[in-house]
Amino acid sequence: MNCMVAQSGGPTVAINASLAGLLRANQESKAYTKVYGAVNGILGVLNENFCDLTDQMKTIPDFIERLIHTPAMYLGSCRYKIPTDQSADTIYQKIFSILNQMKVESFFYIGGNDSMDTVDKLSAYAKKHEIPIRVVGIPKTIDNDLVKIDHTPGFGSAARYVAASVREVAMDAYIYAIKSVTIIEIMGRDAGWLTAASALARTEASPAPDYIYLPEVPFDLDKCIRDTRALLEKKDTVVLAISEGIRDKDGNYISTADQGSDIFGHNHLSGAGKALEHLMKEALKVKVRSIEINVLQRAAMHLASGRDLQEAEELGKKAFHYALDGQTGVMAILTRNADQPYEVSYSSCPVHEIANQVKPVPRSWINDEGNDVTDKMLSYLLPLIQGDPGVRYKDGLPDYLPVEHLLG
Amino acid sequence: MNCMVAQSGGPTVAINASLAGLLRANQESKAYTKVYGAVNGILGVLNENFCDLTDQMKTIPDFIERLIHTPAMYLGSCRYKIPTDQSADTIYQKIFSILNQMKVESFFYIGGNDSMDTVDKLSAYAKKHEIPIRVVGIPKTIDNDLVKIDHTPGFGSAARYVAASVREVAMDAYIYAIKSVTIIEIMGRDAGWLTAASALARTEASPAPDYIYLPEVPFDLDKCIRDTRALLEKKDTVVLAISEGIRDKDGNYISTADQGSDIFGHNHLSGAGKALEHLMKEALKVKVRSIEINVLQRAAMHLASGRDLQEAEELGKKAFHYALDGQTGVMAILTRNADQPYEVSYSSCPVHEIANQVKPVPRSWINDEGNDVTDKMLSYLLPLIQGDPGVRYKDGLPDYLPVEHLLG
Repeated sequence: MNCMVAQSGGPTVAINASLAGLLRANQESKAYTKVYGAVNGILGVLNENFCDLTDQMKTIPDFIERLIHTPAMYLGSCRYKIPTDQSADTIYQKIFSILNQMKVESFFYIGGNDSMDTVDKLSAYAKKHEIPIRVVGIPKTIDNDLVKIDHTPGFGSAARYVAASVREVAMDAYIYAIKSVTIIEIMGRDAGWLTAASALARTEASPAPDYIYLPEVPFDLDKCIRDTRALLEKKDTVVLAISEGIRDKDGNYISTADQGSDIFGHNHLSGAGKALEHLMKEALKVKVRSIEINVLQRAAMHLASGRDLQEAEELGKKAFHYALDGQTGVMAILTRNADQPYEVSYSSCPVHEIANQVKPVPRSWINDEGNDVTDKMLSYLLPLIQGDPGVRYKDGLPDYLPVEHLLG
Repeated sequence: MNCMVAQSGGPTVAINASLAGLLRANQESKAYTKVYGAVNGILGVLNENFCDLTDQMKTIPDFIERLIHTPAMYLGSCRYKIPTDQSADTIYQKIFSILNQMKVESFFYIGGNDSMDTVDKLSAYAKKHEIPIRVVGIPKTIDNDLVKIDHTPGFGSAARYVAASVREVAMDAYIYAIKSVTIIEIMGRDAGWLTAASALARTEASPAPDYIYLPEVPFDLDKCIRDTRALLEKKDTVVLAISEGIRDKDGNYISTADQGSDIFGHNHLSGAGKALEHLMKEALKVKVRSIEINVLQRAAMHLASGRDLQEAEELGKKAFHYALDGQTGVMAILTRNADQPYEVSYSSCPVHEIANQVKPVPRSWINDEGNDVTDKMLSYLLPLIQGDPGVRYKDGLPDYLPVEHLLG
């Protein structure tokens, strides 16, 4: 028999470590003849676009080690949501017919809450139709918004990148003896976990970011400007960290979206950082700049958290064994036993308790004023950004696996 | 006697290594009792805002080692240009009177071509008035646009960051099986050196960036769109690297500047990347995103080039000895003897040959079509991004020197 794995949703630097964990578990257990990878998520199954990972392990030198240290998604991704209406079940029939034909006993899907919806639907369909194929989920998302798991693979690395970058941007901001505001926009449309990680940038000597704004609390522009103005009376440089998803009390994004037009007559959608930059400039009459921490948040393997990669690999291994043990419709999870010394344990959880749910930052982990995080958040975050990722360098640059199969 | 040092212009990750080089040279030679730092460039002299670096070396543990690995500017910066009209020479008189009062025999200025203008003027004034104070320049700029030097400290590190980031952004871009264009905007208003470094991101399996556009060649929008469309017919993902300073044949920046207004009624100045994103979307009707590699280009110590730091330190040491030997009005430079094995030699050059000049990328290092660099550029760049920077980490994050003296 064989197994198959696919990846879905947005990239993280840890998702390939989970794939590596599966491959290692199969190498150790010799349970399956082949591990197939479906290229571009569940669409890869439907389009019968596969690669033979067991073969690649043999032909590409150091395949597993390099896979662990390759960012984004080795198998590519998709944003395809399989339909809910199971009566029109041709898609399900097609998927399971292909899996059956390829002698697949276990199918693994690595992704976020949308992907867990796919795991839920496929496993439910298989059970209902007594198809003996196990479907098991492996979590990942830089947003850290999955329920039932202490934190998601990919988040710790993104948090480390954000914290280090904010620290470096602050160093850059301190050099001029003039009044200035630096706004740093961080990913997270609905959950503020990653923006919260900017608090780790602080040192005894550097208070940046001075304020932190998460989407979980309505953004009060007047108060933000008032607080910033008050700080600028005491010192030159103010650094603000904001989530891309901050909204006012009526739920409107802080954005210059859908109004105004440029030289070419188009409407633009500017982000929260750019919008706040213009508002601050107007209100404070000082130098204001905004910086968008870009997709490197989810792609910067060069600053990944070693612990994150190790946990992602372990979740891949565990998921493999849950499937071997006959579990289906579950996701591999980890539970934190202690912050210090940091300790986690692994188990599985029914995926219907996880799919399509989101885990916001608890209100009690945000300060009363809504412009900072509490010590509880710091204790939670700190263990997640530890450990060197062990990236291999070649000619001065990170050496990543080639992904010709994605370049179609 | 004492010496004094100041830093000026924009930050780089290597500028503090040159400062460390000066300190080490003084430690070894015991030439001066004190090394003073003027805070915020030449303004620190005029405002008599000094710190005693010899004292900090004694009181802050591992001061020099940590200084080498601290990004941005330990002594802060300024953008102040001292006046040319030497007949109204109160500023010059004040500067030299303060230096004299502090028993400063040698004054060092670490910066780019504007800063070398200051070195030029101060040294000329001292000579003219027979003031026995030596003024020596130490180069730095991520733009790599100083003449008479093979490359500038700070450039190699920025180049390494750009190349690694472009490689990682490309990995992120490859994951979806849809037609898309990713535009990466890189710093360099007038010189394309740093944008050229994006070419180092390429591997045998990954051609990104597919095209590279430097400010040295007029940007032909129609051709760029035509070439991109042709590529999209052959493959899904196109990655373009552009300099922030690209201009059309009439010298106009590719920007949405000065026209259109947003929800708040303001005019924005959008960068080349954003402008090209909108133009490409309109023309190609595919997914287009633009990414601005932000100030981390000049602040990301975590991905600095070890060789760059080492050369920056060496230039600081050499400058110190040139001053000790009585030289003034010079800048420490390095000349490349060979690419492979890489070898440089150090010397000094009259600063009036350097100040206010710029060194563009030679046309022959850009391909005929004006959308890529040649192998000559690659041979030039590759040695500059080598070597681990040796950053110290504490609690998972880079450990930088505190800069309380800048937080005024």
